[in-house]
Amino acid sequence: MSLFVQKYGGTSVGTVERIEAVADKVAKFRDQGHDMVVVLSAMSGETNRLIALAQQIQDNPDPRELDVLVSTGEQVTIALLSMALKKRGYDARSYTGGQVRILTDNAHTKARIQAIDEANMRADLEAGRVVVVAGFQGVDEQGNITTLGRGGSDTTGVALAAALKADECQIYTDVDGVYTTDPRVVERARRLDRITFEEMLEMASLGSKVLQIRSVEFAGKYKVPLRVLSSFQEGPGTLITLDEEDDTMEQPIVSGIAFNRDEAKVTLAGVPDTPGVAARILGPVGAANIEVDVIVQNVGADNTTDLTFTVNKGDLKKTVGVLETVAQSIGAREVRGDDRVAKVSIVGVGMRSHAGVASTMFNALAEENINIQMITTSEIKISVIIEERYLELAVRCLHTAFGLDKEPEESRDRG
Amino acid sequence: MSLFVQKYGGTSVGTVERIEAVADKVAKFRDQGHDMVVVLSAMSGETNRLIALAQQIQDNPDPRELDVLVSTGEQVTIALLSMALKKRGYDARSYTGGQVRILTDNAHTKARIQAIDEANMRADLEAGRVVVVAGFQGVDEQGNITTLGRGGSDTTGVALAAALKADECQIYTDVDGVYTTDPRVVERARRLDRITFEEMLEMASLGSKVLQIRSVEFAGKYKVPLRVLSSFQEGPGTLITLDEEDDTMEQPIVSGIAFNRDEAKVTLAGVPDTPGVAARILGPVGAANIEVDVIVQNVGADNTTDLTFTVNKGDLKKTVGVLETVAQSIGAREVRGDDRVAKVSIVGVGMRSHAGVASTMFNALAEENINIQMITTSEIKISVIIEERYLELAVRCLHTAFGLDKEPEESRDRG
Repeated sequence: MSLFVQKYGGTSVGTVERIEAVADKVAKFRDQGHDMVVVLSAMSGETNRLIALAQQIQDNPDPRELDVLVSTGEQVTIALLSMALKKRGYDARSYTGGQVRILTDNAHTKARIQAIDEANMRADLEAGRVVVVAGFQGVDEQGNITTLGRGGSDTTGVALAAALKADECQIYTDVDGVYTTDPRVVERARRLDRITFEEMLEMASLGSKVLQIRSVEFAGKYKVPLRVLSSFQEGPGTLITLDEEDDTMEQPIVSGIAFNRDEAKVTLAGVPDTPGVAARILGPVGAANIEVDVIVQNVGADNTTDLTFTVNKGDLKKTVGVLETVAQSIGAREVRGDDRVAKVSIVGVGMRSHAGVASTMFNALAEENINIQMITTSEIKISVIIEERYLELAVRCLHTAFGLDKEPEESRDRG
Repeated sequence: MSLFVQKYGGTSVGTVERIEAVADKVAKFRDQGHDMVVVLSAMSGETNRLIALAQQIQDNPDPRELDVLVSTGEQVTIALLSMALKKRGYDARSYTGGQVRILTDNAHTKARIQAIDEANMRADLEAGRVVVVAGFQGVDEQGNITTLGRGGSDTTGVALAAALKADECQIYTDVDGVYTTDPRVVERARRLDRITFEEMLEMASLGSKVLQIRSVEFAGKYKVPLRVLSSFQEGPGTLITLDEEDDTMEQPIVSGIAFNRDEAKVTLAGVPDTPGVAARILGPVGAANIEVDVIVQNVGADNTTDLTFTVNKGDLKKTVGVLETVAQSIGAREVRGDDRVAKVSIVGVGMRSHAGVASTMFNALAEENINIQMITTSEIKISVIIEERYLELAVRCLHTAFGLDKEPEESRDRG
């Protein structure tokens, strides 16, 4: 008897038929004697439909009211799944984020979980009920409805697994695991049996849409065993594990190629080069709740400097607005925005013990005549910003350059 | 400066454009300095869409989960209206039933309001905010989401008006007031300037869909001035008032003809005629939360009796089920259900001081060869159950028989 938290995404609950299929799956686990907590997303397309309604009214919908609006999506699916379970003779009870009480801060549309009250869920589990929880949502201390931002249902799943000390958090999606890269871009992309939290974190942060980044952080922090698997086909999926030191098997140098189209580049040019100026620029950007990704600073000729950084494409307009105010106050020359860029990264814990990885990467790109606009590196990742139109080409040539096109010998023994 | 509670129904918020129109209307009242609380229904069709989803899963959806599901409908509209008001520069804040806290009992899908916490709303009104509340919903003491049943948004409006001691509760609908009968059935139906709570109660209870019956009861009990008016055209609507004694104007004998297609007849035949047997029959029906309307008992020849009563068509199957159990335990012969019946009623406070109203009614029906299956009377109402297929004919002939086809002389001076 284990306690499993299972999270089903939008396509897994996209129709009544699919919700019935989820009920069958959950019922099978109950029959094996497991305690079950199920976290659901909204039906696929529903969140976008609701946001489109809001945007018919306000270009930038009021965040508090947007949360009230979009949180209805998951409320629909939890009710329907609970009904489907009851129809099968399994007792079940649905909970909105507020009903659980998943307490968050009050940063509407991108709130962070602060505490989870597990009392009601525990009581239901002890009474033999399946607990069905709305993902993606919570309440702040004043009782306002909040949402965790896109993909937040994964975070809900992992947070509940951590709070309940579940044996495994299983994220059911429309793909059967984590791949070396997006199979839609590289035909020969392969499913990984295992990946470390660190690698997964880098893959997720770069737009591999399998898991939401904060859910992986959470899982790593609270050591929640996390498995990604398909709602639609049987299979072991990909287990996301700690980077075990006793793993004597050869690590591949690069585990995967990640990429992110959702990047826009902003440049503040002609900035007087004085100490603390970067903070005076990025402070207001952070204060406006805009997440900054790659940052590069170049010293110019005339005692001024150019600061370039990337943000989500959706934040570009807002970022340019913030920077125009900053530019005036610090006497910078110009603000430029460019949303035709993308980021490509190679990720692998094996990079730690291998030299020359960067030059392999840059050579592969140079051979395809792809210009690198920005570079950023970490211990297990190298990312470049390139023109968006070269994205697919770049991913394909790197996938080949790092030997990911075919199953490596040593990998066949793993997992 | 007055405090108005305005309630807008499903068609009034059926599209984004209509929600914008509601925002314009509310803004106009704010500009005049009034404090505004707005209660909304779900977008028209949405509640039915959600129920249809549920019924794809369960014929009789689990009531707790059905409430979780359908309560999302109003949550969508309150968010959208709040956005529309903010866009216009009016501060606004949305509240679900649970957020207000509209405390109800736990009779899911037909809960009753027990208490309303007005503190948050008062604070918002004092801060100059428009308060936008989801109609139709509340929470029970355990925090479960409940709904008040169909039309419950009117009840929410009146209950909030009572709790806040509002100057008027204005119910905006797709009709411009209360009519002598349904204009779709009788072309010459006329709008009434005023109607008493008592008359309105009888009209509403008989299926005149302008107002939900419990909202009228509530308004009468707490003396909340209630006005029904159109969202789509200007006009005074119909004011629902106390039956003022000092009203010296001549009352018409009959104010309106009401009808209800949503009736089904159930007969328990061959019941041993012992004291208390009616209670033993109707007790379990009430316990199953089925509302009984007209009740008639006939003494049969063989020391047994037949008990016949009507319920909502939707409750017929359930009622027959309950009665079959009862029939066994008390030794009754047979349970019969018939859903091809309808109820037609004449309503008017003027009936109190006029004799011969019943015979006028029965004669009018007899002239059209309409057979009366059951009769029930109150001080200001006479109702008959007839075959459903004669319904329109019956309403038209009664509208003529009681002189409602044309504006009465004395009525022109009223209101």
